[in-house]
Amino acid sequence: MSDERIPFVDCPIPIADTDQILLGHGSGGKLTARLIEEILLPAFRNPALEALDDQAILSVNGSRIAFTTDSYVVTPIFFPGGDIGELAVNGTVNDLAMGGARPLFLSLAFILEEGFPLSDLRRVVESTRAAAARAGVQIVTGDTKVVNRGKGDQVFINTSGLGIVAAGTKLSSLFVQPGDAVLLSGPIGDHGVAILSKREGLEFEGEVRSDTAPLHELAAAVLAAAPGTHAMRDPTRGGVAATVVEIASRRGLGIDLDERAVPVRDVVRGACEILGLDPLLVANEGKLVAFVPERESAAALEAMQNHPLGTEAARIGRVTSEHPGIVVARTPIGGKRILDLPFGESLPRIC
Amino acid sequence: MSDERIPFVDCPIPIADTDQILLGHGSGGKLTARLIEEILLPAFRNPALEALDDQAILSVNGSRIAFTTDSYVVTPIFFPGGDIGELAVNGTVNDLAMGGARPLFLSLAFILEEGFPLSDLRRVVESTRAAAARAGVQIVTGDTKVVNRGKGDQVFINTSGLGIVAAGTKLSSLFVQPGDAVLLSGPIGDHGVAILSKREGLEFEGEVRSDTAPLHELAAAVLAAAPGTHAMRDPTRGGVAATVVEIASRRGLGIDLDERAVPVRDVVRGACEILGLDPLLVANEGKLVAFVPERESAAALEAMQNHPLGTEAARIGRVTSEHPGIVVARTPIGGKRILDLPFGESLPRIC
Repeated sequence: MSDERIPFVDCPIPIADTDQILLGHGSGGKLTARLIEEILLPAFRNPALEALDDQAILSVNGSRIAFTTDSYVVTPIFFPGGDIGELAVNGTVNDLAMGGARPLFLSLAFILEEGFPLSDLRRVVESTRAAAARAGVQIVTGDTKVVNRGKGDQVFINTSGLGIVAAGTKLSSLFVQPGDAVLLSGPIGDHGVAILSKREGLEFEGEVRSDTAPLHELAAAVLAAAPGTHAMRDPTRGGVAATVVEIASRRGLGIDLDERAVPVRDVVRGACEILGLDPLLVANEGKLVAFVPERESAAALEAMQNHPLGTEAARIGRVTSEHPGIVVARTPIGGKRILDLPFGESLPRIC
Repeated sequence: MSDERIPFVDCPIPIADTDQILLGHGSGGKLTARLIEEILLPAFRNPALEALDDQAILSVNGSRIAFTTDSYVVTPIFFPGGDIGELAVNGTVNDLAMGGARPLFLSLAFILEEGFPLSDLRRVVESTRAAAARAGVQIVTGDTKVVNRGKGDQVFINTSGLGIVAAGTKLSSLFVQPGDAVLLSGPIGDHGVAILSKREGLEFEGEVRSDTAPLHELAAAVLAAAPGTHAMRDPTRGGVAATVVEIASRRGLGIDLDERAVPVRDVVRGACEILGLDPLLVANEGKLVAFVPERESAAALEAMQNHPLGTEAARIGRVTSEHPGIVVARTPIGGKRILDLPFGESLPRIC
């Protein structure tokens, strides 16, 4: 089955009934969660890992160091608005930033497929360099492996990142509380729709480009305006839905989401309708969701809106002690629905 | 071309004449060096990266942090003496240890191929867990991606590592000096021959098992006995030859190597003869090479020999100001040869 041809892969097999890795295990949806909870967490139990935030916060010689890793397997590797190299820098910078860290250093590891054009490698390296310069991080260590033709797919990149967390900053999904406002920094779905349209050769009225961007300055602006912020997440794989559903279910909190308040650009909304996608489930690479105590929420929202990457920021919901573990979305036509994650995969290899 | 069938790939094409990634670009030989020097270093120039050690040493809030990354693409994933999970922990622990760091934290990122058996994943995760426990490191952050069948190869693993370097410790190939003794912690070639024999279904008289092991305690013992040690390297891809040739050529130093002094187990020597391999070029995963000032060399060697992972350690050579940039090996029959790296690939996907 080729992902280039079949964007929607139904995955009705429960994990108990499969003995193989499915594409859905990489979706950021329920299969991913089960893989983590049934196989990975039991092996590596420790407090940093069990917080299941986008980064570990470590105490090293009295400093608080943020540490994170991500592999990037996006296809195609060049897409409207970016490429795999830019994504690999911004994605890891953002995972550091969501922990309130100042990103400092990245590692960069390539797995190249035999036959990959050197000209494409040069292009990816150049956009990696430019993205690192833009984010103000140094690439200080690296690795290059080559696999045989047909045993990889052009280029996979892993970046790991290090940053420093200021003494007063404490962010984690563990701190999210009933009453917190849920803020979103801008319109959603651009990255996923850009990838899918390139992959499928689709054209829409108005270009859709990936929103890939480094969020560390936006995050710092939010923290400066609202130092009591409880948690931040960048809603990548699985979209905003995965972010809020994961926090609700893991923390046993309810979240009320107002879909009418969620910014979605018209061209993206139109594309999602044609493609049968829920924008809430589509990946973003330059947006953040913040969980902020009510008293600081207006200041946080204003700080977002005053930043170039957050001009369309909106308050999209509220954490509640009602319906614990459940995200209830108020639909555009005024109804309510329970927001859940797909079992498996809607958009494979989106990042 | 399948690496399972053809272990020796001649690669006579100079990089200027190729516009594609070749298997040899991942060999640790000349093509890898050119890829790094012509494409990667020019993009990411900074002092930490340019030292081209196995790890970056970073100053963070006054602490000295070692940071390193490696992707593991070894095939087969299970081999005599270890598997890809154990290798991924030990390899990264060793890159930290070679910088004089105490390894503390690892990240763990999987790229899984659709269809990979969950039972194999559980087995890899268990050996990863056991190796981390043995090395005393915590796996604190991770990532899982899935690629379509035929776009990966069972499982690739990236681990990045963090460690602390004590205030007095300064190790780098930049510090290697004429007069330094070259010490090797034990017999070479076991890992490469173990992988190759498994891959090719070969059997030798006497089992050959990978020497994969965490070297941080051995390295600490060397540093305690010989605090003036200039540099340490673990001779993985490209073997001991790659380690000494790289340091000689980059630093413009000569190195005299006594091949008769290099420990090689009989079964490995025999296998190498049958396979047409030079043991000096074969990968190791549990050995270190130390460059130690003459006055501390006996103490360093004794410290190695007193450690369980270094009982067969030997002094194998000396750094000299003669024949700069060249490694001269005295052969077992008393002749001399210039030790050079293969252009491309002798053992693809060895780690």
